[in-house]
Formats: sequence, structure tokens, C-alpha cells
Amino acid sequence: MRGRDTREALLFSGMELFLEGGYDFVGTNAILERAQVPRGSFYHHFEDKQDFALAVAEFYYEQHLPSLDRALGNEVHPPLERLRRYFEALKRDFERAGYSGGCLLGLLGQELADRGPKPRQALAKLFGRWRHRIADCLREARERGELEPALDCDETAAFILDAWEGALMQMKLKKSGAPLEGFLRVVFGRLLS
Amino acid sequence: MRGRDTREALLFSGMELFLEGGYDFVGTNAILERAQVPRGSFYHHFEDKQDFALAVAEFYYEQHLPSLDRALGNEVHPPLERLRRYFEALKRDFERAGYSGGCLLGLLGQELADRGPKPRQALAKLFGRWRHRIADCLREARERGELEPALDCDETAAFILDAWEGALMQMKLKKSGAPLEGFLRVVFGRLLS
Repeated sequence: MRGRDTREALLFSGMELFLEGGYDFVGTNAILERAQVPRGSFYHHFEDKQDFALAVAEFYYEQHLPSLDRALGNEVHPPLERLRRYFEALKRDFERAGYSGGCLLGLLGQELADRGPKPRQALAKLFGRWRHRIADCLREARERGELEPALDCDETAAFILDAWEGALMQMKLKKSGAPLEGFLRVVFGRLLS
Repeated sequence: MRGRDTREALLFSGMELFLEGGYDFVGTNAILERAQVPRGSFYHHFEDKQDFALAVAEFYYEQHLPSLDRALGNEVHPPLERLRRYFEALKRDFERAGYSGGCLLGLLGQELADRGPKPRQALAKLFGRWRHRIADCLREARERGELEPALDCDETAAFILDAWEGALMQMKLKKSGAPLEGFLRVVFGRLLS
């Protein structure tokens, strides 16, 4: 494999493995084995395991970005309808995955938030990019009169993502879509209506 | 130390250590060292590390229970005011702790949800006990006419705790109380108003 392919193979394996058990649960040996890559290549591309995990987090977010942009940019539907459809599609993805894994950013955020500024700033930045997309969609809804003029779109977007992250954790614990259904009903039936 | 004291010393050390780094980050050696307890005592009280972590989760919840009951049972204030004061007091506790650690149930939930039915059922049960307390407070508010008669108090309580857990994770990442302030404004200024 060439450099870029090796790096991608490592990131993909890391994403799968971290989602199965978390950051500390997974050793670099398991990652090398899953990616079929020698140890030297790992340290050619990444400083250490933490540096690797932050690259995996970014890779995970970027894998998700096209479907986020497609859902929120689909102008066939009004903005709030797009946002609801976005979360409904995610819910169906999690259903297909047996309600396991949840959100890798949430998992890494829990484990790495108290290990110095580098991991927490990197993860906060990814959450920030996600939140900005949601806030822009809320602003569009507000401009169209779907939401009240005084609504703080940034604060509301942050709150919605926090509730989503919490609901994903309950989904994993209960192995059930009920927490995500509750999220959809409260956010779109009450908070934004 | 007698049996009960030893068990408590282990649980207290486990609670502190898991909050610093997570379940897989902390080895049993570190727990024994912090608690000043020999290895044999650990296995006298607990089957293995996972069994221990679930006992720590219960201990953590029970440590929190008196302040939860005191806040929500304080009939000087109407029910929604009690609930707001409860989360405001937690926010001050986290501020004093430098916005580190967050919620141990959330951290263990992220790490242990996909490791078989035992840990996820044990953690879901603790979250359920917490949720019931919040739901009862919402029901009391509904009966007094502070909330609309059609409100689903169980679903709303679950949603509020999910949003709280997500906000705590952002608090840890940002080392800031802003996510908790946003939570308070959206929940009490919009969702329940």
C-alpha cells in the first residue's frame, strides 16, 4: 500500500475498533492487526496513540460530513423538516447497527477530556463544526419564520447536540431506539415548535 | 480496617480514579494503592474489575442521592424552581472541581455499554432511578398547573437528563460552565416554560 492508503487503512481500523470498546480498551497491536499494517508505518503517520485517535475522530467526522450536508442542504424540504429528516436517518443507521457503538466523538470526549489541552481542543473543534451546521439550519428556519425571531440559534444547536449525545448513550445502554424517538418527539414536537 | 470499611475505601478510591481517567485507564493496582488495601481484600468483596466498577457506579449514585432528595423535596419552592436549583447547585459543584470529571455514570456508560448485558443493565437501572426522581418532580409541577396537562413527564425527564449528560461532556471538553448555563436557559427558559 502507498502512504495515503496505509494511513486510511489505519484510520478506518481505528474507527471501527474504538467504536467497539473505547480508546483505552484498544491497543495499537489490535489496530495494526486489523489494518494489516506494520508498526513502523503507524509511527510514520502518527506521533503516538493519542495523536492517532484524534486523527480517527477527524476521519469519523469527515466520513459523516457528506450525509450531513446532503440532508441539511436538501432544499426540497423546509429547514426544520431537513433537520428532522437528518436525525431520523441517523436513527435508522443506528437501528441497522444494533444500537451499538453510538457516537465516536462522544466516546472519545468522555475518555480524553481530562488528558491535557490537545485532545480536548481537537474534539471541541469537531463538535463546533457539527454545531455550526445545525445552527445555520436553525437560522434559515428562523429567517423563514419557522422559528421565533428571538431564538438563540447557536445556543439551541448546542443544546440539541448535547441532548442527541445523551440519547445515543442511553440507546447503547438500553439497546433500544426509544431514547432517539423521545429525542425526536421533544425536539421537533416541543422545543422547536 | 473491618470488611465494611475496606469495601468503602475501595469504592471511594475507585470513584475518584475512574472519574480522573475512565474505566480502562485505571488498573486495579492503582485502586489498591489509593485505598491502601491488599489485593486479596479486593477479590473478597468483588468478583472482578467490572463487578467493582458497577459497585462504584451505585456508590456514586448513592453519594449523590441525599442532595438530590433534599433539592427536589424542598417544599419551600415550587417544583420547577426546585429542579432548577438542583441543576444550578450541581453546576456550582462542577465549577469548584474545575469542570473536570463530569458524570461518572456517563463515562462508564460510554465505555461499558457494549460489553454484555450485565454492565449496561446495571447502569441503565441507575439512570432509571435518577430519571424517576426528575419525572416525579415534573408530575408535581404539572399537577400544580406549572406545566401543561398533556406533558409526558417520563419522556421529558429522560430528555432533560440526556441533555444534561451531553452538556457535562462539553463542559469537560471546554473546561467551561457555558454548556451548563446554556442547558439551564434552554430547559427552564424554553422547554418547561
